[in-house]
Amino acid sequence: MKPLKTEIISVGTELLLGQIANTDAQDISLMLSEIGIDVYYHTVVGDNPERLRDCILTAKNRVDVIITTGGLGPTYDDLTKQIVADCFGLPLIENKIEKQFLYDYITNVHSEISDNNYQQSLIPEGSTIFHNKWGTAPGCAFRKDGKIVIMIPGPPREARNMFKEYALPFLASLSDNIIVSHEIRIFGTSESRLDNILRPRMSQMTNPTMAPYAKEADCLLRITAKANSKEKAEEMIKPVMRETMNEIGDTVYGVDIPNLESRVYQLLSEKRMTFSCAESCTGGDIAKRFTDIPGASQFFVGGVVTYTDEMKEKLLGIPPDLLKEKSAVSREVAFQMAKRIKEITSSDIGVSVTGLAGPTDDGIHEIGTVFTAIASKDGCEVVGLKLGKDRNREYIRRASGNFVFDMIRRYLTGLPIVDVFSR
Amino acid sequence: MKPLKTEIISVGTELLLGQIANTDAQDISLMLSEIGIDVYYHTVVGDNPERLRDCILTAKNRVDVIITTGGLGPTYDDLTKQIVADCFGLPLIENKIEKQFLYDYITNVHSEISDNNYQQSLIPEGSTIFHNKWGTAPGCAFRKDGKIVIMIPGPPREARNMFKEYALPFLASLSDNIIVSHEIRIFGTSESRLDNILRPRMSQMTNPTMAPYAKEADCLLRITAKANSKEKAEEMIKPVMRETMNEIGDTVYGVDIPNLESRVYQLLSEKRMTFSCAESCTGGDIAKRFTDIPGASQFFVGGVVTYTDEMKEKLLGIPPDLLKEKSAVSREVAFQMAKRIKEITSSDIGVSVTGLAGPTDDGIHEIGTVFTAIASKDGCEVVGLKLGKDRNREYIRRASGNFVFDMIRRYLTGLPIVDVFSR
Repeated sequence: MKPLKTEIISVGTELLLGQIANTDAQDISLMLSEIGIDVYYHTVVGDNPERLRDCILTAKNRVDVIITTGGLGPTYDDLTKQIVADCFGLPLIENKIEKQFLYDYITNVHSEISDNNYQQSLIPEGSTIFHNKWGTAPGCAFRKDGKIVIMIPGPPREARNMFKEYALPFLASLSDNIIVSHEIRIFGTSESRLDNILRPRMSQMTNPTMAPYAKEADCLLRITAKANSKEKAEEMIKPVMRETMNEIGDTVYGVDIPNLESRVYQLLSEKRMTFSCAESCTGGDIAKRFTDIPGASQFFVGGVVTYTDEMKEKLLGIPPDLLKEKSAVSREVAFQMAKRIKEITSSDIGVSVTGLAGPTDDGIHEIGTVFTAIASKDGCEVVGLKLGKDRNREYIRRASGNFVFDMIRRYLTGLPIVDVFSR
Repeated sequence: MKPLKTEIISVGTELLLGQIANTDAQDISLMLSEIGIDVYYHTVVGDNPERLRDCILTAKNRVDVIITTGGLGPTYDDLTKQIVADCFGLPLIENKIEKQFLYDYITNVHSEISDNNYQQSLIPEGSTIFHNKWGTAPGCAFRKDGKIVIMIPGPPREARNMFKEYALPFLASLSDNIIVSHEIRIFGTSESRLDNILRPRMSQMTNPTMAPYAKEADCLLRITAKANSKEKAEEMIKPVMRETMNEIGDTVYGVDIPNLESRVYQLLSEKRMTFSCAESCTGGDIAKRFTDIPGASQFFVGGVVTYTDEMKEKLLGIPPDLLKEKSAVSREVAFQMAKRIKEITSSDIGVSVTGLAGPTDDGIHEIGTVFTAIASKDGCEVVGLKLGKDRNREYIRRASGNFVFDMIRRYLTGLPIVDVFSR
């Protein structure tokens, strides 16, 4: 079967005004890439009948599958169905079931039915109807003139769910290719170093392919293979994955997991251990990130956010003399914070972080100076980081948190704790 | 002057694979909308010479200004400049200054210069060069055949900064219109209620216009006016703003501020007061959100994340009998948590939140059951919320945090504390 060329046309003036990003096109493209269907174009056009018509006709001319998002609602500027039907010479026909759903819903909420509401239940003749369980506007699909046309509402949750539930299985049945991706997660090998290691191989690869993405010193490397079966694609990825992981070394923290905290969750769960944290500059972000994971309460007992010297004294019992002598941003205070939070909470591991996230410094340290510590039955280790005085607050807080999670990972897997930022 | 029709063409296969959202088009569109330049289309096309050529020629045919993002880098699939120059019949010319910048940079980092690197310093003849201070690939702009063409690199930070610094002032000088927007921020009036209040007026407005956006019970209403001067646009917005704010009432928490925590920051700063928090189900998110604001340490003294009963006892001194009798998710425990954190930290205000964010319940309460409290010199008030058993963990945590910030806002402005979710 020849590959299906696809175009996604998103309709909505709010996209052209930059009020929202076109996440519908992204979500749908990602799903299509996983079933091996090639997306050739994304187009965004406003709620304007002539321009929308031109875009539909252009697409009809250059691709096999047209997917529209948006413009199916009840307001006067929702025109997608009318224009698309017209471009394919199809009349709009009232759908009794959708009409009833809509009228029941509207009677419940508003008590008044307008002509605009009525238009939502008009569907191009011969279409398969996609009932909308996440909103009110139905979607639909039809085949005509050798093309496949799929129309989905615009709100991201509706678009994602409706495409996944109704359109994807149908399109998957038309595709010969399966695409499989795996993601290697890396913390502490910089993007440029990764590039140096991998470029010679990467530039010669066509299938599988390999692509790196980086943020806050947290990298992911996506390896993707295309084949006619899942098993075959997996088989193609396996040796590349193994070789690449060997080359990168112990900064690889996981495969197909979303972030460092998830890896820490896995390890704590395997070892049935708990941790606690005392945060200063990260201001609760470490606790927040870990407790984003459902079930976190089994392994995270609690933490303190001691944003001021007084709180470090009151909540953790850090001696005021030490704070005075060494300042809150110091190796000694980080050491005491980790030790004390572990003791107070009786957790297996206590971690701490204290530093300067900016934008103003304390007159002593450079912005980006951060001390982190990890206390366990094996003692307490402190690392001093220089995260860069030109970095912003958000980066410093995020990178500090990443480093703390990586310290826990390294401790739990028996790896040495190293300052990956200075390498 | 006639309005300038604009198209943004983003070049990159990673966009068509859904690996990233097209935030470049969004960022640029938002900047253009502010200077009154109409964007008619966004197009995304892969790193494919024929299809890219077709898209450029289509744009040349239908708009006045073509802005491209992406495809300016050093790799073999970066083709934007070559194809665009060709579509306009312009040769590529070596730019000595950019070549030197590039060679200096590459010699510093890699030590080897390839033909691919060299191509970055080739620019269409007669272009204005945009030196890239955020990366290596220069951008450029030229006028030819009655069109304005602007090329910007793809990485979002580079695209945003280069467009803002180089292209925007030039385009602004060509536009007759100024667009001014103000945002009213609302917490606790549901989107549908807002719609009921505003629809009659909104549907009749053309300039200014008004559009609502909602998430996690936090709404924003954007009022936008187009005029030939900033003063005139402001003048047009003023009465609409006043009337709308009156209609909505005390759920309006601010104008042109990003979120509830910023409003709390403003109020605490005006009154020179401090707060502290004891978090259970939000797991540090309240502390994290407040300390996202630079300067937070003046008003936020600290907090505890007491994720387990034991921690509520150890860190806050909540009597174990009370926890046993009433359970951690209770009016009584929320009351004690707020009172105790205020006392321990000697802050002016102590807030607390304890509840069930899911995905599993405790066998007693429904998911979404949350108790929050605020303690001050005027006593301690508790509110019990039902955030909805069908809501996900992320929503419940976020909405709880919003409610806590709104409690502080209401306390500091002398408003009654109300359960806005049950209205």
